Amino acid sequence: MTVDSTTADEALAWLALLRAPGLGAGAIRALVARHGSARSVLAQARRDPSIAAAARESVCAPDGATQAADQRWLEQPGNHLITFASEDYPALLRDIPSAPAALFVAGDPIHLWSAQIAIVGSRNATASGLANARAFAKAFAQSGNVVTSGLAEGIDGAAHAAALDAGGATIAVLGTGTDVIYPRQHGDLAARIATNGALVSEFPPGTAGKPEHFPRRNRIIAGLSLGTLVIEAGLNSGSLITARLAAEQGREVFALPGSIHSPLARGCHKLIRDGAMLIETADEVLGQLRGIGARLADHLRGRLGEGSAGAAHENPAPATAKRDPEYARLLAALDRTPVSLDELAERSRLPIPALSSMLLVLELEGVVSAANGGRYVLA
Amino acid sequence: MTVDSTTADEALAWLALLRAPGLGAGAIRALVARHGSARSVLAQARRDPSIAAAARESVCAPDGATQAADQRWLEQPGNHLITFASEDYPALLRDIPSAPAALFVAGDPIHLWSAQIAIVGSRNATASGLANARAFAKAFAQSGNVVTSGLAEGIDGAAHAAALDAGGATIAVLGTGTDVIYPRQHGDLAARIATNGALVSEFPPGTAGKPEHFPRRNRIIAGLSLGTLVIEAGLNSGSLITARLAAEQGREVFALPGSIHSPLARGCHKLIRDGAMLIETADEVLGQLRGIGARLADHLRGRLGEGSAGAAHENPAPATAKRDPEYARLLAALDRTPVSLDELAERSRLPIPALSSMLLVLELEGVVSAANGGRYVLA
Repeated sequence: MTVDSTTADEALAWLALLRAPGLGAGAIRALVARHGSARSVLAQARRDPSIAAAARESVCAPDGATQAADQRWLEQPGNHLITFASEDYPALLRDIPSAPAALFVAGDPIHLWSAQIAIVGSRNATASGLANARAFAKAFAQSGNVVTSGLAEGIDGAAHAAALDAGGATIAVLGTGTDVIYPRQHGDLAARIATNGALVSEFPPGTAGKPEHFPRRNRIIAGLSLGTLVIEAGLNSGSLITARLAAEQGREVFALPGSIHSPLARGCHKLIRDGAMLIETADEVLGQLRGIGARLADHLRGRLGEGSAGAAHENPAPATAKRDPEYARLLAALDRTPVSLDELAERSRLPIPALSSMLLVLELEGVVSAANGGRYVLA
Repeated sequence: MTVDSTTADEALAWLALLRAPGLGAGAIRALVARHGSARSVLAQARRDPSIAAAARESVCAPDGATQAADQRWLEQPGNHLITFASEDYPALLRDIPSAPAALFVAGDPIHLWSAQIAIVGSRNATASGLANARAFAKAFAQSGNVVTSGLAEGIDGAAHAAALDAGGATIAVLGTGTDVIYPRQHGDLAARIATNGALVSEFPPGTAGKPEHFPRRNRIIAGLSLGTLVIEAGLNSGSLITARLAAEQGREVFALPGSIHSPLARGCHKLIRDGAMLIETADEVLGQLRGIGARLADHLRGRLGEGSAGAAHENPAPATAKRDPEYARLLAALDRTPVSLDELAERSRLPIPALSSMLLVLELEGVVSAANGGRYVLA
């Protein structure tokens, strides 16, 4: 994404809020909405009784060393702060009840706007589970989807690596800061992901992993994705949390069955009994997501219409999308050969954040396909 | 069963009807119901315009050699003809739309009145599938259920053998006459089943196996059983027919999941997608059947009340069953140690066919348990 709607000052103000003790995502979102910007929140923090004393102290007198480190992180090429107030904030994630106040991104945030499929599963996967993770990730990547997972050992790592090997993009959502890679042995993998995808976290730079971070991380994996596929999972696996959150968020949950003698099939079998779709092939997942794509597009269009300030592409009905003048400009700019977002912006004279959301709507409607590397083509 | 309500003459008359060309199960049931007995149908066949010419010819002038062979089969110890008109006809099977007009039984027909669970699956099962068939059959037999299957190679044979090895009873429903064993290599197994269970067929003695017999056989397997468990099945497996019939008959369908790479898991996965219960352990099947047992008991009680002539135990409501004088006599005759049906008949002075149906009602209500070998105990 070449345009960043959040200025450096505003980004630093957001970081002050994100680092304030006891200030949750919902509170931050509400404060910024009420005051108009993070800088305004900071300017008026002393007079806002809704901010508890400890948070107010932290916001008004931030730690200088932390602030300098945050500034260095923001200035580093490839690092982005995507706030809930930004049009770049991923639309599907915006839709979940406990949406993060902001995302720290190392890599290209464009992938956050692509159609994502989550692949999750056990850290202690079997050889056959790892092979299945690789095969499904490859198929999803080759059909133009971004594979989203949690960078954990086992299924997660196999899915990320296979998506990259297939020339696709992959998003790793972390339970640490994007500059703290856990597990350590996935350092090289994380570097590849930052280059051909994105490392994403709601935790500020430098945050170490804590056990309670990982279930929170899971809601972001589920919230970014159209659907979540669980490959192998024990009955107490964190993957079942991700799947439950996906179902609660109205997203599709997919699970691979296995032998009744394999403890790592138990979690998948539980999900299937609870209503997850039993999956044998990647095409079944893709077929099902095409089906729910249209429904999500409707919903998303509503959200985009009501939510984002300055977006002039509001409420085109599905059949009339092509008659909306801005959609008509975008469709005229599209081609049978893949076109980059920058090129589309130049051709259509539409701002990139608006373009991103319009392209996702068209993608979910099946009019546009996203090719690897943020290039778009008429479907 | 020590009492046989069908006399030798009446049995031969039924055989004449069963062997008449073009006379289906529904037509035979209707004729006998209209004329009062099979002998009356034969006596009035020349004057009944509903009987087509070929069937009438066969009925009025039966082949002498066939008749002699049928008589020999009927006289052989252990062989029984259970007609639809008999109180011995299994109540659950009576309930299906296309119930056979009669069952040829080699073995003890008492097992037809026990709670049965069908285990079916591929003839070309894997080693793991065969091991699963054995383990589930053993568990069902040890919990006092009769294992019902089709005597085929693979899953069927493994289930029969394991039920017998566990000291339980098993019923094999054949697509041939009970005196024609197919596949040949199951001759020894069939002999064991006739001794500790029953070979059952709707086809008269001497009938060879034809491809169209086996789907018809499958409806009897499903119809006799409270539920059907499919262990391994390809997408074109006859086991899927059995499962579909079981579902259509309102019985429970259970399926074992497996690897997405195993062609023999595909049929089971299809069943699970279509609503079959995904099964990991035998206890799950037994628990589920206890649940539907009560429902079937209600239904069965209605049928028994309206259907069987001379049964004096009509319409006891579930809670009042114990207050019905005949049920009270039966409950008084039962004990915490298993009691044989003969002993129960002597103690309660109730006729054995009435006893059998009352015991099934109590069994389905969870008041009585059937132990191996037709012995009953208070649950």
